[in-house]
Formats: sequence, structure tokens, C-alpha cells
Amino acid sequence: MKYDKILLEHGNGGLLSHELISEYFLPRFKNPYLERLEDSAVLTIGNHKFCFTTDSYVISPVFFPGGNIGSLAVHGTVNDLSVCGGKPLYMSCGFILEEGFPFESLQTIIKTMSEAAAEANVKIVTGDTKVVARGAADGIFINTSGIGIVEYPGTLSVKNIRPDDVIIVNGTIGDHGAAVIRARENLSLSSDMLSDSAPLNGLIAEILKVSPNVHCMRDATRGGLGAILAEIAKSAQVFINVDEKSIPVQDNVLAICEILGFDPLFLANEGKMILFCPKSDADKILKTMHKHKYGRNAAVIGSVRKATQGRVVLKTSIGGERMIDLPTGELVPRIC
Amino acid sequence: MKYDKILLEHGNGGLLSHELISEYFLPRFKNPYLERLEDSAVLTIGNHKFCFTTDSYVISPVFFPGGNIGSLAVHGTVNDLSVCGGKPLYMSCGFILEEGFPFESLQTIIKTMSEAAAEANVKIVTGDTKVVARGAADGIFINTSGIGIVEYPGTLSVKNIRPDDVIIVNGTIGDHGAAVIRARENLSLSSDMLSDSAPLNGLIAEILKVSPNVHCMRDATRGGLGAILAEIAKSAQVFINVDEKSIPVQDNVLAICEILGFDPLFLANEGKMILFCPKSDADKILKTMHKHKYGRNAAVIGSVRKATQGRVVLKTSIGGERMIDLPTGELVPRIC
Repeated sequence: MKYDKILLEHGNGGLLSHELISEYFLPRFKNPYLERLEDSAVLTIGNHKFCFTTDSYVISPVFFPGGNIGSLAVHGTVNDLSVCGGKPLYMSCGFILEEGFPFESLQTIIKTMSEAAAEANVKIVTGDTKVVARGAADGIFINTSGIGIVEYPGTLSVKNIRPDDVIIVNGTIGDHGAAVIRARENLSLSSDMLSDSAPLNGLIAEILKVSPNVHCMRDATRGGLGAILAEIAKSAQVFINVDEKSIPVQDNVLAICEILGFDPLFLANEGKMILFCPKSDADKILKTMHKHKYGRNAAVIGSVRKATQGRVVLKTSIGGERMIDLPTGELVPRIC
Repeated sequence: MKYDKILLEHGNGGLLSHELISEYFLPRFKNPYLERLEDSAVLTIGNHKFCFTTDSYVISPVFFPGGNIGSLAVHGTVNDLSVCGGKPLYMSCGFILEEGFPFESLQTIIKTMSEAAAEANVKIVTGDTKVVARGAADGIFINTSGIGIVEYPGTLSVKNIRPDDVIIVNGTIGDHGAAVIRARENLSLSSDMLSDSAPLNGLIAEILKVSPNVHCMRDATRGGLGAILAEIAKSAQVFINVDEKSIPVQDNVLAICEILGFDPLFLANEGKMILFCPKSDADKILKTMHKHKYGRNAAVIGSVRKATQGRVVLKTSIGGERMIDLPTGELVPRIC
């Protein structure tokens, strides 16, 4: 046993999170569905292919610019299903409430969840509510699990990434992380810094309609674009080349990162995904993405090369090169 | 809005829990699946019928005689699927951990979960782990959601309960509640007071094999047998007659109830279900239950009569009558 106690780092989506999962959970819960370690499990029942996913949300503050824990909980699960090629159908929600949590806030959160579910065309069909005494939880935690049906004929998986694939992101990175940090620090920066929290199932359905050749999709949440690229490179055993200049970042996100010493590459997103596809399909996919409200700033940010060891190299905007690895350290706790 | 703040009572499975769900959640998340308000949602996808359920576990203490939060989280979800006629197939687990939670305890919990999943023949296929700072949660909370396939040709639902149905319970009530109270109060009573936490899918499969006429099944968790009977009577609009003398209760559970002023009827169970069936099928069902390790003490405890208003009357062991309603007050918080 490497640790005596759980550290904040075990939950940040970086190196220690991965150790916890691969060294402690996987050996016990041993099965091929879980071992894929993608955003959803893909299951065959009868003659249908389903995906199934779960996420708990512990974000602080509960209300942030651009959303709240309720919309986030719906978007997060919708996106985890969508990047696995699933059409999200049904969702569960489990609330853990702290005694004394304002009833009005709960009502707002429920309202936002129902609106988010309506936008994503998914139904919340089962739920659970627990209440713990004051001090035993921090306000509200929400778990959402989701079921989707997979109709895409191709296989979407890290294992499917091929040399010469290009990598596309659907828009500016770091918006969610920056918005939450701003809310938390009470910074009086420009007021238009909003979380990108959004359901990506509509955009992804359009993409999969124009290309049967998408190899892999992932949403870039905890740990940001950097963590997800590092994870994929490791898991697919490929060399990933990313060009910093081509990665869309909003000016105000860059500004807050400079002030507080964050790197937008490792800031969380809640409406951003990356996809891997053959170069030949990139143009039509980009064109499709640009037409969608959640893909307007989509861009090709890098490409894949064969390698014997997974690794990510960023060509920096000043012309240097930088290795991107799974983040260590505390990053931003309770970002989702 | 009836309340300013969330109260502990909103989570106890009694009257306020029902108000929260029926007055606040249901009107927002409006859909026929959720409105059934049974232990799982029953969904049709393609030509298959599925059930889907979720529960968060916040039990304190995390380790109790007869189990821990991990086995409880598996059994609870397995049972919620099983009483809806589902064969549990796949499960998710979401952990919320408090910084500083002992790593060894987490390992024990994971081990117990994997053993419980193996006994119930269900696979944990997807998961999530969040960590919050010290003081923002109490040790460990676990959410499990589950998917089952429904192959039973009959319809299992409160709506299906008929006058003259008999009510069967699969064994002694209040064991889980009594075991947790004992652990919490550090009472040095007899040491054989264990939680009844157990997976009921095997027992239920046997029951459904011998009878195609089971009308409804429910597990009697939070709020105990009393709360579930009151809820069913209300929802099915029937008169339920229960005979106290016929309800199996262990002597040591009765003893702890007498000492601390609890009523076994309202103590939680985690391996107990009740079923409604025509009188003509009761004998063969009981016989089947008695052969199974989780049904050895099964007994007929009451029956159903037509009524214009749902209500439960208990014939007490001293010959009187007592109305049983949804419990109010704090009961035992964090019992599951």
C-alpha cells in the first residue's frame, strides 16, 4: 500500500487518480468492460449495444458563472455517453444533501437539471435522496448515471487510434476551470467568463453522421486537455504532437491563468471533446462542427505518430517543445 | 415553499421524503417512468425490457456488524432491480471520499464490494472517484446504479395489487437497523446481532420461477416494513391488514427496541422484501422461500382488502388495532 490516507490528489484526474483506479479498483472489480477505462462501459444486451456511465459531482461553489451543479451533472453524463458513440436515453440522479441546505437553491438546481435534460433530450427516470447532518457533507453532492444506445457502426476507442490520425477539439479550452476559479476567488475580472458546460450529444450525432471513420472521442474534463492527451497517448501507445498555437483559448482565460499561475491545458472543461480521425475526414468533420453552436471554434490541434512508448509533445507558441504528462499536485480541487 | 432548509427528515424515507419527491422532484422531472415511484424504472429499449435504479449510501458507521458500506451499496442496488423483476446485470459505482480517509478501509470496502458483486452475479463495469477536503464529507459516500433485464412475463407493480392478495415477508425484520444502532451506540448486547444485508436476486428468481402470479414486490429498507406498507396502501388505494404476531422479529432486535424505544416495524432492513400474490399461490411461494437461505423465516403477515382510501391496520399481539402510517420525525439518520 503506497498511501496511508486518501489525498486530494487521488481525485484530480491526474497521476494519483490513475494509480488509485489501476492499482486498487481494477484488480478487484476485474472485468473487460471496466478495464477499457473509457468514459462509458459499452455493453451488449440481446441484440443491442448500450453504454453506461456514472459520475458524482461535488463542485464548489455549487452555483458558478454559466451553470450550477445540476446542469453540470446532466451535461457530464450526457457527454460521457456521447463520446462513446451512445445516444443518451435515460439518466438517474442521486442527491446527497446536507441538513440546512437552502430549499430555494435545491429548487433552482432541480429546475436547471430538468432544463438541461430537456435540451439533451434525455429523461431522468429514477432517483434517490439522502440527507446527512450538518457538517457531514458540504451542501449538495449529485450523482448521475446514464444509459445510451450505441447505433454508430464504427468502434470508438482509444485502441482504435491510428498513426497519422489528426486530433480535433470542438472549441476553446479551460473555460469551465477559469469560471469556477473566478467564482471561488471572487475575482472582479471581465464578467463574460462563463463555464462551457454544455451537452455535446447533438454535435457528436452530427459528426458521426458525416463520418463513419471517427476512431476515438473523449471529453476533456478534470485535468483538462493536457491530462486527457497524456492518458490517451499512454493507453494507445502512440506519440501525440500538439501545436500550442492551434489550440483555441479565450483571452480572458489566458489572463486569469497568467495572474494565478494556471496552465489552460490542465484546466477543466465541461463542454469540450477531442476526436481522432483520419486526415482525409478532418475537413468535412470540421465543417460540420463549425455549423453547430457547440463547435464553432473547432480546430485541428495535432496529430498522431507511431511510437513504442506513449508520449505527448507540445510545440509551444514560441517555437520550443514541451512534454505533456499526467498532472501531479493538487490542481483545482472540486472543479466538477 | 413549505421549508426554508433541508431537514434530516427529508431523507428518512417517511412523510417528508415523500413530500420532497412528489411535490418538488416529480413536477420538474415529469415522465411516466419516474412517476411510477417504484424501486427501479422499467424501460423498453428495442425489444427488451430493462430496469434501472440508483442509490447513494451514506451509512454511519461505515463498518457495522454484518457488512460495510460497500456490501450494502451492492446489495441495495441488486435488490432494487430484483423486486422489479429484473435480473441484475451491470452496476456502476461512484465514490466520494474525504481527504484523510484511511486507505486500508477503502481497500476493505472495495474487496467487500467485489465479493458482494460476485455473490449476486453482477458486474461493476463503470465508476468514478471524487475526493473532497477534510470536513467536506464524512469519510466515504458511495453511489451505485444498476441495470437489469426483465424477463418475468407478469407485471410487478403496486398498481397490480388486488383485493384478497396475501402479503409475504422473507424473514425477520429490523435486523439492519438494530445492528447499526448497536454499532453506533456501542452497546454491549448479545454479539450475534447482525445486519441482514444480502442480495435477494437468487431468492426472487426462485419465487418468480414457481409463480407467474406475483403482483408486486418491494424491499423494505429506510423506514422499515411499516413505511413500505403505508406507502403501498396509499399508492394502491387498498386496505392492508397485518398481524403483528405473524411478523418474524428476532428476540435480540425486540430487546434493543425495548431498551431504546424503537419500533421494529420502522427499523431498516437490507435483505428483506415483501411480496403480494393471490392466496392460491402463497403456499408454493412460501415453500420455495423456506428452501432458500435468504427466505428461511418467510411468513404470511397480512392481506389486502378493497378500500376507497389507502390505509394499514396492524392487529397487535395483545389483540388491539393500530394504524400504521408513513413515519415522521428523525427515525435513525444515515441508516443506509
